[in-house]
Amino acid sequence: MDLSRAAAEALDAADPLAGFRARFAGADETGPDRLLYLDGNSLGRMPLATPAAVTRVVEQEWARGLVGSWSQWIGAATRLGDELGAGVLGAGPGQVLVGDSTTVNLYKLLAAGAAARPDRDVLVCTADDFPTDRYVVAGVAEARGMTVREIDADIDEGLDLAVLAAALDERVAVVVLSLVAYRSGALADVAEVTRLVHEAGALLLWDLSHAVGAVPVDLDATGADLAVGCTYKYLNGGPGAPAFLYVRRDLQEELRSPIQGWFGQRDQFEMGPAYEPAEGIERFGVGTPPVIGMAAVEVGAGLVAEAEIGALAAKGRTMTDLLVALGDEWLVPAGVALASPREAARRGSHVTFAHPQAWQLTQALVDRGVVPDFRTPDRVRLGPAPLYTRFVDVWDAMDRFRAILADRSYEAFPAERARVT
Amino acid sequence: MDLSRAAAEALDAADPLAGFRARFAGADETGPDRLLYLDGNSLGRMPLATPAAVTRVVEQEWARGLVGSWSQWIGAATRLGDELGAGVLGAGPGQVLVGDSTTVNLYKLLAAGAAARPDRDVLVCTADDFPTDRYVVAGVAEARGMTVREIDADIDEGLDLAVLAAALDERVAVVVLSLVAYRSGALADVAEVTRLVHEAGALLLWDLSHAVGAVPVDLDATGADLAVGCTYKYLNGGPGAPAFLYVRRDLQEELRSPIQGWFGQRDQFEMGPAYEPAEGIERFGVGTPPVIGMAAVEVGAGLVAEAEIGALAAKGRTMTDLLVALGDEWLVPAGVALASPREAARRGSHVTFAHPQAWQLTQALVDRGVVPDFRTPDRVRLGPAPLYTRFVDVWDAMDRFRAILADRSYEAFPAERARVT
Repeated sequence: MDLSRAAAEALDAADPLAGFRARFAGADETGPDRLLYLDGNSLGRMPLATPAAVTRVVEQEWARGLVGSWSQWIGAATRLGDELGAGVLGAGPGQVLVGDSTTVNLYKLLAAGAAARPDRDVLVCTADDFPTDRYVVAGVAEARGMTVREIDADIDEGLDLAVLAAALDERVAVVVLSLVAYRSGALADVAEVTRLVHEAGALLLWDLSHAVGAVPVDLDATGADLAVGCTYKYLNGGPGAPAFLYVRRDLQEELRSPIQGWFGQRDQFEMGPAYEPAEGIERFGVGTPPVIGMAAVEVGAGLVAEAEIGALAAKGRTMTDLLVALGDEWLVPAGVALASPREAARRGSHVTFAHPQAWQLTQALVDRGVVPDFRTPDRVRLGPAPLYTRFVDVWDAMDRFRAILADRSYEAFPAERARVT
Repeated sequence: MDLSRAAAEALDAADPLAGFRARFAGADETGPDRLLYLDGNSLGRMPLATPAAVTRVVEQEWARGLVGSWSQWIGAATRLGDELGAGVLGAGPGQVLVGDSTTVNLYKLLAAGAAARPDRDVLVCTADDFPTDRYVVAGVAEARGMTVREIDADIDEGLDLAVLAAALDERVAVVVLSLVAYRSGALADVAEVTRLVHEAGALLLWDLSHAVGAVPVDLDATGADLAVGCTYKYLNGGPGAPAFLYVRRDLQEELRSPIQGWFGQRDQFEMGPAYEPAEGIERFGVGTPPVIGMAAVEVGAGLVAEAEIGALAAKGRTMTDLLVALGDEWLVPAGVALASPREAARRGSHVTFAHPQAWQLTQALVDRGVVPDFRTPDRVRLGPAPLYTRFVDVWDAMDRFRAILADRSYEAFPAERARVT
């Protein structure tokens, strides 16, 4: 791989997705001191079309339409769900619902899945999964008197299929896994994982938060059972945007949400005496859906769908290859270690580096206009977003990274993190 | 009560809250054909300051601040909770959290309360409470092997204290009640209800959805245990706006959310191996809070706080007195019956009328530019919002109502409701 800046410029010149950059706030800036935002996997940039979409809901639908606008809003959670299904999740209609947070959705589907396998008493997750996933698994297990098998996953290389296989037996009700690991970016082997979990007769619940918009997610084709995910990362839905959930159509009837809300009720406006779950994916609805937030999700997810996930994933692989190669060349000699899979096919769209002073390095990078993410215990995570990040952005960010290592300026920053509460 | 239009005009001229009307979209219109919006208890009008507040979050904090804005957002759910506490809930700081839907919050607090009383196996609610409340109670009871005592409440007059008392004993863990009944507007006797429930050793969980912003809610002063409520009705937070929850400070440590999310975790960004609930009200957080939606809630709730709940409730009582008196004069002779408490002190800010063809009447009213709410089985609910509804709006709406009854034009509308799905 040619590691010159000119080579990065050439990649940008040939980038079929280059036109999307101008459709995001701040992504099109040039100049040597520009902000290099490599944290789109934490909070994606704002699409320029978003303010108008939000304003339309607020100033037209709400302010003028008032309650009359419920004729549109009432179907929004499933309509947008179908759009996500078709555009970014590989899911046919009637299987995706938008609303609530990723955590609430995970709770709903995990509790529903566990209840649907009453003869099984074990939940499986990985010891290095995103905290909220592990906490939800622990909570559901405790409430239901189940046992958690928290399996080891190499925090850099991801899930070992043999380790997963060893944890699976006829006691396992549901397996919760992230398709792309939040720390390392390791991408699970979907076909093999699905085969193993289904062979054991368990349900597979994917957390797609760090995958959707970065790698192909073919829920229907891969035989997924259940999935949840976040829309404010690569889908650019905005801070705290409503999340989504997926339940394969033939599983819907046997699963019931533990939270029996009026938006999951059949004949909702009959307001009948007893809860009876709606027939389709609507049964996983709970309360009034976040109408304003959904308008922003629609814009963000629409751009990803328009770009097409194949093109995004291909660019993501090349970008992360560039990160790995520049890391080998510039960072490793300065004491930094790659903490992500080396093989592009085994990664999502982010790459993580380890260094004992990662927290100080993170602060120094931010100070030099590079936005990464610190991850415990000693990781700097770099997440270029194929939709709007340039190859020269990646190159320049790594150039600043090596400069900080060279001049040791990072040592001037606090070694201890302040409590964020 | 003088029932002339001139008298209504005089009430408007003397209204100390009249200045607030100009701060809401569409509320200041005049003219005989203007829209008469009496559904602010379903979806409040848009404050004119809201678009700028939302735009600030979207175009400044998100688009420019990117992840750096989390320094502000991270405390928003408790900061806004404290504002609601001080401004509209009568709750001291550290007891109110904003986020999730009313239903999710109800589920969290009910499950937490039930788990905190493991020696008790009964949940109490009323047979006429809002559907989502009853459904959540049924779901939590089923999951925990508890029994529901669904007590009769007169659907027009509200809760009979003797009936409540008869349902209370040492088996009752939690009582769920709406402070203002969604159908009739009946206002519960807070002091007596609290005394009865606490005498039985049970926890009291208020649903404040139809009360907050309409009547004084002095949570701390009345010794409330738990409460949840909606922000898109009288608080004018917008469609699907994030809800709130309240847990009295001295109860917080013994209650645990059934949904163990990373936003309820102590030292959240340590991302530690085991869930350990945060110390204060934050432990009832779940996922990433809806940042954009909270900005709109802050504006809407801020206006209610500025107007002061005493003034709003006083105007609400006079407005609903006018509705009742005009109903007696104009509607009752045409076969309509009052379906709300007659005494102002026993009502929230809405009044409901019963008629066998209520659905047709509702459609006819909408057709004549009056927006009420149909409620099952045969009710027309009229909800003037003291913050922006004029007395002449109430008078004119009732005038159109009597005209529809007189010319029987409502009979031209479909008798059967179409399914909304």
